Amino acid sequence: MTSDLVLYGYWRSSAAYRVRIALNLKGLAYESRPVHLVRDGGEQHQQAYRALNPQELVPCLVDGAQVLTQSMAIMEYLDETHPAPALLPPDAAGRARVRSLAQLLACDVHPLGNLRVLQYLGNELHADEAVRGSWSRHWIGEGFRALEAMLAGNAATGRFCHGDQPTLADACLVPQHYNALRWKLPMEEFPTIRRIVEACQALDAFKRAVPEAQPDAPAVD
Amino acid sequence: MTSDLVLYGYWRSSAAYRVRIALNLKGLAYESRPVHLVRDGGEQHQQAYRALNPQELVPCLVDGAQVLTQSMAIMEYLDETHPAPALLPPDAAGRARVRSLAQLLACDVHPLGNLRVLQYLGNELHADEAVRGSWSRHWIGEGFRALEAMLAGNAATGRFCHGDQPTLADACLVPQHYNALRWKLPMEEFPTIRRIVEACQALDAFKRAVPEAQPDAPAVD
Repeated sequence: MTSDLVLYGYWRSSAAYRVRIALNLKGLAYESRPVHLVRDGGEQHQQAYRALNPQELVPCLVDGAQVLTQSMAIMEYLDETHPAPALLPPDAAGRARVRSLAQLLACDVHPLGNLRVLQYLGNELHADEAVRGSWSRHWIGEGFRALEAMLAGNAATGRFCHGDQPTLADACLVPQHYNALRWKLPMEEFPTIRRIVEACQALDAFKRAVPEAQPDAPAVD
Repeated sequence: MTSDLVLYGYWRSSAAYRVRIALNLKGLAYESRPVHLVRDGGEQHQQAYRALNPQELVPCLVDGAQVLTQSMAIMEYLDETHPAPALLPPDAAGRARVRSLAQLLACDVHPLGNLRVLQYLGNELHADEAVRGSWSRHWIGEGFRALEAMLAGNAATGRFCHGDQPTLADACLVPQHYNALRWKLPMEEFPTIRRIVEACQALDAFKRAVPEAQPDAPAVD
């Protein structure tokens, strides 16, 4: 597929997963260019990719002459440049609610379980697999407990995190839920989160964005 | 001071510091209600505050009936409800750049050095003060190296992170710089960051937001 939009990502990166969901919800075609985060010490650290993103993290979206980094900034950009369907509600209070739900995950949960952090814990703090698992479950659990309270206790929650259309908050929630399952976090405490994730997973935009559907996902026997 | 805006924060929280900068840049009066993050096990964990913010983190801004959490969402809300002076540029590409610079700090630097993370490292991973210091310097250094490259290598950088007016990116940078000094990160590598921080610190809005100027800051002999 050729397209003006080029997404540099990695099948299992949850930040790239968010952007794939947003692109799909907008109905935007894009060319996928995988950046392998582990092979050869990590392609994100090589000069070719660093020139695009000095942070050496995925995703990076190239839109013609624009090079865009940071998944939340990319999704806001897509929402501004392709307004329909909107990924944020029209009112300032609703927008603040959606952004706070999204950022609870994007700022306070996901970065703590990122590959580079787990590598540092292993290499510098000699944390073994079990300790890294406890670490990951702890921070996802903390975030999900707060998110569950904010979703279950608010009349603005609908079929999705905010009302009955998917927003940036849902685009952040589904990839974090994927990570929670990967780390075997018990999900019984989070019925509202589970209900919303199921509603998202029924949509084609979310189905096409799953890690296992990406061109760089490893083949399954 | 009485005001419709009430900010729950803590003098040394860099997320609260960001919001203070944004409120001051907008010329908005607010009532400050300190939440002591350490005393009595942390007032943010007590029921009165949890009812406002189930995440048990500061800041939280109350605007009449609206309870707003997450510093980036709060600043976007202030920019939408009080448009002048704007804290984001008018064009989508510029807005994406400012948000990506802000989120580099808000997502990938600050959460890793947050109090609750340092407490977990100490209590669960038995990391002593020296290890926690190395951890903090490592993540701030990683972020600042990328930020320096993104600022120094881009014609859109001006007196401030983006052009000649302060934006959300500057509101995130100055508190992170404060943390960098606190952890004694050598700053020689970051001349553009230092230049921009100095330009910010010359402004009254930034001066009034510094931790030591807050009502809950400890008295200095």
